[in-house]
Amino acid sequence: MTGLQLQDIYLARQRIESLLRRTPMEHSPSLSRLMGVAVYLKLEALQITGSFKLRGASNAVAQLSSEQKARGVVTASTGNHGRALAHAASQQGVKAIVCLSNLVPTNKVQAIRDLGAEVCIVGQSQDDAQREAERIAREQGATFLPPFDHPAIIAGQGTLGLEILEQQPEVAQVLVPLSGGGLFAGVALALKSANPAIQVHGISMARGAAMHASLVAGQPVDVEELPTLADSLGGGIGLDNRYTFAMTRQLRDDVHLLSEASIANAIRHAYHHERLVLEGAAVVGIAALLDGLVEPRGPIVLVVSGRNVDTEQHARVIAGANA
Amino acid sequence: MTGLQLQDIYLARQRIESLLRRTPMEHSPSLSRLMGVAVYLKLEALQITGSFKLRGASNAVAQLSSEQKARGVVTASTGNHGRALAHAASQQGVKAIVCLSNLVPTNKVQAIRDLGAEVCIVGQSQDDAQREAERIAREQGATFLPPFDHPAIIAGQGTLGLEILEQQPEVAQVLVPLSGGGLFAGVALALKSANPAIQVHGISMARGAAMHASLVAGQPVDVEELPTLADSLGGGIGLDNRYTFAMTRQLRDDVHLLSEASIANAIRHAYHHERLVLEGAAVVGIAALLDGLVEPRGPIVLVVSGRNVDTEQHARVIAGANA
Repeated sequence: MTGLQLQDIYLARQRIESLLRRTPMEHSPSLSRLMGVAVYLKLEALQITGSFKLRGASNAVAQLSSEQKARGVVTASTGNHGRALAHAASQQGVKAIVCLSNLVPTNKVQAIRDLGAEVCIVGQSQDDAQREAERIAREQGATFLPPFDHPAIIAGQGTLGLEILEQQPEVAQVLVPLSGGGLFAGVALALKSANPAIQVHGISMARGAAMHASLVAGQPVDVEELPTLADSLGGGIGLDNRYTFAMTRQLRDDVHLLSEASIANAIRHAYHHERLVLEGAAVVGIAALLDGLVEPRGPIVLVVSGRNVDTEQHARVIAGANA
Repeated sequence: MTGLQLQDIYLARQRIESLLRRTPMEHSPSLSRLMGVAVYLKLEALQITGSFKLRGASNAVAQLSSEQKARGVVTASTGNHGRALAHAASQQGVKAIVCLSNLVPTNKVQAIRDLGAEVCIVGQSQDDAQREAERIAREQGATFLPPFDHPAIIAGQGTLGLEILEQQPEVAQVLVPLSGGGLFAGVALALKSANPAIQVHGISMARGAAMHASLVAGQPVDVEELPTLADSLGGGIGLDNRYTFAMTRQLRDDVHLLSEASIANAIRHAYHHERLVLEGAAVVGIAALLDGLVEPRGPIVLVVSGRNVDTEQHARVIAGANA
């Protein structure tokens, strides 16, 4: 595989545990009744910065040498990875630069500044911002930290798997949002190391599921990126993917794809039955159960990964819209 | 005062800490910008059963003798105290009976059963249910546990005050939802024991603020109960109040009252800026800041007490309604 082992996840936890929240594991009466087995929600949406991404980002920053730390880190993500890296670097006294295009709305720029990062605004597209981030990495010697395909990121996300084992040691089946595969690979590595019989399913949206398409093709492929309620799961896995594709291929029991209507329905379910405001990417496990996609083996744990949703969109979905 | 001391709160914590969540303390960028000082949210809405009430209920059950535990506990609350007592008793292997009237909707009955209590349904009003609970207490020897005016309940709620001191030791001002005064008295006792200069403000809705009216009158008085978005804060303090009135009178720095429009506005603020679904009672601290009722002394901690809101009502408020 990739050489990453359970011990790397324990080492990650030692580095980051004082910087993170141990998020709650909550029993879901409504989903347990529906499935006929106990269903639990691992509420990682309540992590600091609002998503699991802080685990990997904190570990990646903590693993830098003193020299690398002195030169800082850089990324071009406007989403959960950008937020997480901004906060993780700030907490560890490391300068973070987040490159954004002129199209990014002011409130998102402010949110990243609030998390302690320097923002550089350049160009008219995500590609422009990405090129600027790479230029800064080259010229200033800052470390470019990718969102998922990096051993330190995967090991950091894997600490969520350790918490699942500790909080619900009888777990038989885990549903994990699947995008670039950093979260999936880390969590699955932890769970399968404890017992290979624990089923780990990856869940993606049907609109632009790059990892699923790559698994079908037998190698990393590009897919068209399409608007989706699960926007945090969008984007490619990289044609030069080094870690997460191989790990996901080896560790997954199954992968399921969801319609936008199913994701919207699960956002509404989480709101009415769990009183949680969740982003589309975070409810994919709930959607998979509501759609009957998974043969239930209890106890089931759903990884509820983030809450950084546009609340205007969320309110439209609550009012009945599917987009 | 009432003889209750900080040490009682430490004893309560020892009894209950394995049964409860240590809830997060979260920095609020939006409120900190508004106030010009650091503002933190003590997110007790994320407590098991969805409110702070589990602290007091767990401590009250844990303090019972073996003989009392064998005979069980009883209450007539349909709200957060009923939910909390059902769960606390179930966790400690004690039978709980929750008496409800025939008017209580099926989903609320099911929710209390889900939490492990026996439900007895009787009569057509909350008063009928209350009388039945008292009859069960007399005839079966079950212990009737009141929602707030009881030393074990107050000490249990006070454990939230200890967490505030531990998570934000520089705290200068704390805003606490004020109803029967169990939460207020416990939290204020912990904070004032650490430093009498820490300001503790109680916040109630203007519609039916029994403790405020009693403080003005200099003794417990009844007020008319009126519909309010902060329904968990409704109800009297008891004309025979023994503990919480005296403690609140002694420990409060100030009490503020809120309009329904202010509470609705704060529910919307929490949704859009913090992505939290909160009941009206839980946002009163946010509302007091947004209304400019409090002279800010930072760091400020707002006690965000519960999330057991009717989501149909919540969705109406998000869409712009004030009721």
